[in-house]
Amino acid sequence: MPVNLLAPVAADLHPIAGVRIGVAEAGVRKANRKDLTVFLLDEGASVGGVFTQNRFCAAPVQISREHLASGQPIRAMVINTGNANAGTGADGLVRARATCIALARQLNVAPEQILPFSTGVIMEPLPHDRIEAGLPAAIADAQPGHWARAAEGIMTTDTLPKAFSAQVQIAGATVSITGISKGAGMIRPNMATMLGFMATDACVHPSVMQQLARELADGSFNRVTIDGDTSTNDSFVVVATNKAAHAPITTLASAEGQALKAAMLGVAQKLAQAIVRDGEGATKFITVRVEGGKTGDECRQVAYAIAHSPLVKTAFYASDPNLGRILAAVGYAGIADLDQTGIDLYLDDVHVAVKGGRNAAYREEDGQRVMKQSEITVRVLLGRGDAVDTVWTCDFSHEYVTINADYRS
Amino acid sequence: MPVNLLAPVAADLHPIAGVRIGVAEAGVRKANRKDLTVFLLDEGASVGGVFTQNRFCAAPVQISREHLASGQPIRAMVINTGNANAGTGADGLVRARATCIALARQLNVAPEQILPFSTGVIMEPLPHDRIEAGLPAAIADAQPGHWARAAEGIMTTDTLPKAFSAQVQIAGATVSITGISKGAGMIRPNMATMLGFMATDACVHPSVMQQLARELADGSFNRVTIDGDTSTNDSFVVVATNKAAHAPITTLASAEGQALKAAMLGVAQKLAQAIVRDGEGATKFITVRVEGGKTGDECRQVAYAIAHSPLVKTAFYASDPNLGRILAAVGYAGIADLDQTGIDLYLDDVHVAVKGGRNAAYREEDGQRVMKQSEITVRVLLGRGDAVDTVWTCDFSHEYVTINADYRS
Repeated sequence: MPVNLLAPVAADLHPIAGVRIGVAEAGVRKANRKDLTVFLLDEGASVGGVFTQNRFCAAPVQISREHLASGQPIRAMVINTGNANAGTGADGLVRARATCIALARQLNVAPEQILPFSTGVIMEPLPHDRIEAGLPAAIADAQPGHWARAAEGIMTTDTLPKAFSAQVQIAGATVSITGISKGAGMIRPNMATMLGFMATDACVHPSVMQQLARELADGSFNRVTIDGDTSTNDSFVVVATNKAAHAPITTLASAEGQALKAAMLGVAQKLAQAIVRDGEGATKFITVRVEGGKTGDECRQVAYAIAHSPLVKTAFYASDPNLGRILAAVGYAGIADLDQTGIDLYLDDVHVAVKGGRNAAYREEDGQRVMKQSEITVRVLLGRGDAVDTVWTCDFSHEYVTINADYRS
Repeated sequence: MPVNLLAPVAADLHPIAGVRIGVAEAGVRKANRKDLTVFLLDEGASVGGVFTQNRFCAAPVQISREHLASGQPIRAMVINTGNANAGTGADGLVRARATCIALARQLNVAPEQILPFSTGVIMEPLPHDRIEAGLPAAIADAQPGHWARAAEGIMTTDTLPKAFSAQVQIAGATVSITGISKGAGMIRPNMATMLGFMATDACVHPSVMQQLARELADGSFNRVTIDGDTSTNDSFVVVATNKAAHAPITTLASAEGQALKAAMLGVAQKLAQAIVRDGEGATKFITVRVEGGKTGDECRQVAYAIAHSPLVKTAFYASDPNLGRILAAVGYAGIADLDQTGIDLYLDDVHVAVKGGRNAAYREEDGQRVMKQSEITVRVLLGRGDAVDTVWTCDFSHEYVTINADYRS
């Protein structure tokens, strides 16, 4: 049961001019499954992308990085589920390239203009022949209004599709933003990958797209954690189709750049948070906000120490306001000169610790009340400076162990 | 059920000349519990100790560090269970000092000659009056043969006491080594602390003791992990009573120093591994050995990434030879220039991955056979150099969640 997450309503998702999406059943791993999705981009789209830092990154990640770096305009993305094409060596690269070549031929573009993505079982050969055979049906299905269908098409063990949309005024023009994501653990039982795709019809110069993708990912997908495991296939791609009626954004520092980024970040955060809400065995959605650090980095470090601690996560599951576990995680986060007597802790509005010790006014039942909620904010005040950072996570339940201890077959 | 661990037999533990141990029931938290242990050291003992790196370290850790640094010869250690005296601020320091003063008076030594240790609930005031009241009984109980009794006296939620002993020849003299440890998670539900105490009658110059303690901890207690959480109270103390009939060891680099350290390391590793074997919900004991790194540090980093991954640990619990999870953990361990095509993986004798891909000769049933064992060695070959490091851990079971999600009361 996802935490406060509903399936998207197709009519609520704005189509993006210049993007058509098609979904097909290619039988990659199982029959009768929507397992192949193509994004077809009109000429003139600007594209940026960021990828997993895992050194065991999958073949499609390596190819997508290479194609983005080639500087050739991207014209399509192809996503298969059922097989991650990870841990597959040189043969995996050949198969990922073959998929790009097949789609490029049908679209009459160069293979370097295609970005491939795969998600599913690891260390099995990609059945690229079946993917190729499925491409015509996916292309024939392509429509601007197929975002909800795509959100379903990229699901693996997600319990719900994830899609969000927004509009914003840029220099007098109404600009639309729509995105989809998938993922439920960084790695599901032998399934890999968190994927995010966003598009806008805003006009953004290609030179700005990598920075935009990186900053959006940093404020959203790079701020969530379920179990601390980093997938081999994580990818996040941002497309600007340049169809809207406003002058191109050439720097994110401009008023238009800021406005667009803020609106896109809102959608990206919802997409990233949806992955946590649908996290393996999640029963609660936790916001960990760390304030008063010397730098944003140290705030984030402390937030992740809390968000990754199995002891803190099981305490959330148990609705146990276990201050000691949270404070201990702050203590081992790796800030060498941290002074424990400067630290305050809040659970939502409840002030539980003052200057490193229990707040005399704190009553256990108040902590208990907050811990029973399905949405909880942990606020840590480090008392060292003005920096702030936030991470989103979920609790750690019996269901997590059950899901991940199930044998793969 | 601990993994292949038995309670110590008192008769198998060598007494250490110059060390007497007494245990009493002080009613720190509950009545009728052996919760107070004193180690009384003859004059002339050399003592070294290492402590938690957690910035939220407990009051007794701060005092023990201070007393060791004062250079005054240590004459006693006092350990209470039931209360960790952690997260207790300035008041906690006062209470820990009061305990030292009380014991020092009874022994007619200075308070700086006492090392205090506490383990139990966090953020509750230490009932130092009850501890003081219990000291005479603990002192009256003191005997050289009480190591097994001490192993019981320092237990909190451990399911078994932990004690090991060895003898070694140093320059023609038979030297004895005995140690005890406690701990079952880095932090139990609101219980804290991994503790280790070792003593030998060997002759070791005081100037060598800190280095000896650090090197022993580095090769044992600093190589184990259950859930990645670092306690506020972890302490490891080494005593050499200088009673044996050999010339004092003034450097660990000497043949005698090496022989003593090797023998002590054997005991320290058993003590540390016993904590993993008795880990919360553990059903398997896992040795993660990483070879072929450029440095020992990077081998250890990879070993910890594997040992901390909830996905890897649940796969062990499920006896699932899930190669993808182990390789993915290697990939995200943080070695920036790691080449995935150089990596081999073994489960015991079974060669599962070759050069980053599945070994063609690997059969799933062979991996399965190893994963079903109660003791498993994961061997990762990085193919980058000659360094090696090893970490010991346990699996991650439903029982872990049950133990840690139980409400504290």
